[in-house]
Amino acid sequence: MSLKFTITAADGRARLGELATPHGTVETPAFMPVGTAGTVKALGPDDLEATGSRMILANTYHLMLRPGHELIRRFGGLHRFMVWPRPILTDSGGFQVFSLAKLRRISEEGVTFRSHLDGELIHLDPQKAVEVQESLGSDIMMSFDECPPYGAAEAEVAQAVERTSRWAEKSLEARRTGAALFGIVQGGVYPELRERSAAEITSLPFEGFALGGLSVGEPKEELHRTMGSALPLLPADKPRYLMGVGAPEDLVEGVCLGADLFDCVMPTRNARNGQALTRFGSLSIKNAVHAEETGPIDPECDCLTCRSFSRAYLRHLYLARELLVFRLLTIHNLTYYQELMSGLRQAVVSGTLEEFRAEFHRERAGSGLNSESGGCKAASQGGF
Amino acid sequence: MSLKFTITAADGRARLGELATPHGTVETPAFMPVGTAGTVKALGPDDLEATGSRMILANTYHLMLRPGHELIRRFGGLHRFMVWPRPILTDSGGFQVFSLAKLRRISEEGVTFRSHLDGELIHLDPQKAVEVQESLGSDIMMSFDECPPYGAAEAEVAQAVERTSRWAEKSLEARRTGAALFGIVQGGVYPELRERSAAEITSLPFEGFALGGLSVGEPKEELHRTMGSALPLLPADKPRYLMGVGAPEDLVEGVCLGADLFDCVMPTRNARNGQALTRFGSLSIKNAVHAEETGPIDPECDCLTCRSFSRAYLRHLYLARELLVFRLLTIHNLTYYQELMSGLRQAVVSGTLEEFRAEFHRERAGSGLNSESGGCKAASQGGF
Repeated sequence: MSLKFTITAADGRARLGELATPHGTVETPAFMPVGTAGTVKALGPDDLEATGSRMILANTYHLMLRPGHELIRRFGGLHRFMVWPRPILTDSGGFQVFSLAKLRRISEEGVTFRSHLDGELIHLDPQKAVEVQESLGSDIMMSFDECPPYGAAEAEVAQAVERTSRWAEKSLEARRTGAALFGIVQGGVYPELRERSAAEITSLPFEGFALGGLSVGEPKEELHRTMGSALPLLPADKPRYLMGVGAPEDLVEGVCLGADLFDCVMPTRNARNGQALTRFGSLSIKNAVHAEETGPIDPECDCLTCRSFSRAYLRHLYLARELLVFRLLTIHNLTYYQELMSGLRQAVVSGTLEEFRAEFHRERAGSGLNSESGGCKAASQGGF
Repeated sequence: MSLKFTITAADGRARLGELATPHGTVETPAFMPVGTAGTVKALGPDDLEATGSRMILANTYHLMLRPGHELIRRFGGLHRFMVWPRPILTDSGGFQVFSLAKLRRISEEGVTFRSHLDGELIHLDPQKAVEVQESLGSDIMMSFDECPPYGAAEAEVAQAVERTSRWAEKSLEARRTGAALFGIVQGGVYPELRERSAAEITSLPFEGFALGGLSVGEPKEELHRTMGSALPLLPADKPRYLMGVGAPEDLVEGVCLGADLFDCVMPTRNARNGQALTRFGSLSIKNAVHAEETGPIDPECDCLTCRSFSRAYLRHLYLARELLVFRLLTIHNLTYYQELMSGLRQAVVSGTLEEFRAEFHRERAGSGLNSESGGCKAASQGGF
């Protein structure tokens, strides 16, 4: 298989690993910025590289609709198309179909929906989702799943669990290339459904496993409780991916609980909303308190933005809706995320993860900044 | 004085020069990208530098309204605020007041207008325009002028010429620092008014002279005719600045006619409208013909965009309104402009300007691309 995962150190349930893909090796735990439409919004590959990002997520749904996976296949794949030579993980499109598309009809055969772009009627099923991801040239593909919304009744979630298992088998059968394929465990916030889903999905020969249906609006305690009970259900020798997770505190929890991969629109989306993320919490750059501030967002941050630009200038750019500010805040937020991941990895190596976690929460608690970060996926898929 | 201009070579009426400012020396003829609100739209200083740009224009009107020149003065000036260590020329605000602001009342004492941002009542006059530019820490300030619209009757333009002369004297008297100040010659497309304005303005001790009121909607022939007759009216030993000019063919004409400085929103604004400027004319990146094009905008262009990205990818980004495309197209267009200026300077040195000009027009004529570039200032001051 085209994926090799090696665990090189551990601290409690947390692990340090190396994930070798056809486009290079990534140290885990790793955070993947979201490159929805073939670009991590506001950044070029040069900026992205400079943030310390080494692997990104791309959205099958968005790319299938525009510019179309066939065009990208003819181009030689998404890496060439977007000029990102490092690993790319693609989702299956399921989450976007369930959250974005209109007029869905869900059946055992898949989902029929209308494109949010032009209303075209489109069908997506396990076979098609794999075909599209193979066209994109993904390093890690995700199997097609059904992701019920938060608040769905147990019976509805149970049905989604069953269908996700059947679709998982079909996804595996549909694979034509040697690209890695991950299975997705559903079950919402219902422990027994998570157990059942995990048992069924992990019995299949996937190269890695994900928890889906998290960070979809559930309270933070339910998210962390479910992470805590469901992550141990995934095989220890394969990569564990927490889909759509999360806020900085969720990354810390996730790593402590043994997760290896994360993605979330929070650092990029919040940047476009003028929110700078720091060790001390979130900072709203438009606030008047920054109007004359000559210092950077975080004097200890080594990103391009903090090395050069004052809060006053960033505030001015944001109030004037100048395009540059979206690039600068996105660079900062992703650098903060990647620095956090780097700190977590070092803590695992040195066996000091518990101290790292305590210090993380101490820094936040000691500041007057807003450390409430909200759900990750809510309203996350709209255009900017 | 804080400005030194040295002519180092000539070819016909064209000249090569060195313009030494408090923030470094610029080779002329030079094109200044427009940094309206303290940023050349979509670019950071790093990108700007990479395009070969060495001097920019900033808008007094915009910065006075937001974030305010007093704030920028307390910051130590615009160079520090926007992190651009190279020369900055500031306009006087007059053009924007006449083209953007609402409810203008023009009198001998100046202009009273309502801010296009919040409707605040603001007064601008020769003294205030110089004070604001001194607060910004401009390397080259412009005197406050009255710029009548294209199509204004000769009597109206004559009145503006007279007022511009009186305001020019007041601008000089208002100066408190040693920053260079340029006078502006008005007169529209009326040769006798240009002569009269030039005689009056060039009799005053300015460090350089500009032709104002061009590229405001007049036909290309009138623009070039006025450039041809009015440029020789400006002293040969001081920098000559063609304000708001222009399209690539206007830069070529302007250099041949002895102009030293240019500014125009065309390369940056057109980029945000999906227009890539090339040796062969203008290319609309959204056109279906680029959908599967693996090559760059111009294979001979050495900019970041052309070194890395395909037309197909740029088209996709543009159709998806992805922020990255505005940066990439702006980088390309400014690089094209600066390469054109570099070519013109080399041609002056080697005495081959006429051949350069002929080749410029041959390349354009030989392509199927649209080489109609339109007026420079029309609708140029709106937000993105």
